[in-house]
Amino acid sequence: MHKINLAEKFSQLSAHWSPKIVAELNGQQVKLVKFAGEFVWHHHQSEDELFLVIEGEFEMQHRDSGGLPHSIPLKPGEFLVVPRGVEHRPVAEKEVSVLLFEPAGTLNTGTANSSPLTVDYPEQL
Amino acid sequence: MHKINLAEKFSQLSAHWSPKIVAELNGQQVKLVKFAGEFVWHHHQSEDELFLVIEGEFEMQHRDSGGLPHSIPLKPGEFLVVPRGVEHRPVAEKEVSVLLFEPAGTLNTGTANSSPLTVDYPEQL
Repeated sequence: MHKINLAEKFSQLSAHWSPKIVAELNGQQVKLVKFAGEFVWHHHQSEDELFLVIEGEFEMQHRDSGGLPHSIPLKPGEFLVVPRGVEHRPVAEKEVSVLLFEPAGTLNTGTANSSPLTVDYPEQL
Repeated sequence: MHKINLAEKFSQLSAHWSPKIVAELNGQQVKLVKFAGEFVWHHHQSEDELFLVIEGEFEMQHRDSGGLPHSIPLKPGEFLVVPRGVEHRPVAEKEVSVLLFEPAGTLNTGTANSSPLTVDYPEQL
């Protein structure tokens, strides 16, 4: 049993859009990721995903069941859950540090699984 | 889909040792709790529990498999996972605000399920 210091872990992370695993519990994983720019539109068939902003800002763009676009801006200390099936993509003007909570094995690009941004096997950090 | 602002939610929380549910995903729940003082020693038979400090400090006291006591101090931006089966109790000198991540239905006092601190049905916040 040991503690994880988020700032310390994020200081070891430089590549964008490449989530790293920092903890696992109950079949779920805590991942840390930095990113800037626009991600690929995708959804997850059977996984809900939690995004908690640690530093910086981003917006979660998503499409409702009618296909209409929406955007939710997120700042440090704010989180949201993207339910399974909801088309989404995070977009950040500047670099942002985000904590993810999702089932072990969740693919970062979900249904867009042959994207150049797909990380098949995220590493431990 | 909506965002949760942690500071705003914590400002609505006053009672100690009474976790409130703020989100659910993949059969897991995000709960917020404030506390000060010593909790009751307990463990969970089949749930791992994540504790992330948002404001304040506390120490996680726990006993290893030989029954020896240990203590891990935690500050804002630090978290740990207490694996199922590990005897533990959080202790705080002053009030602390903590985010919990654990399976839906996890009892706060675990095996100490008839403690005066037991909350059988945590509310939504």
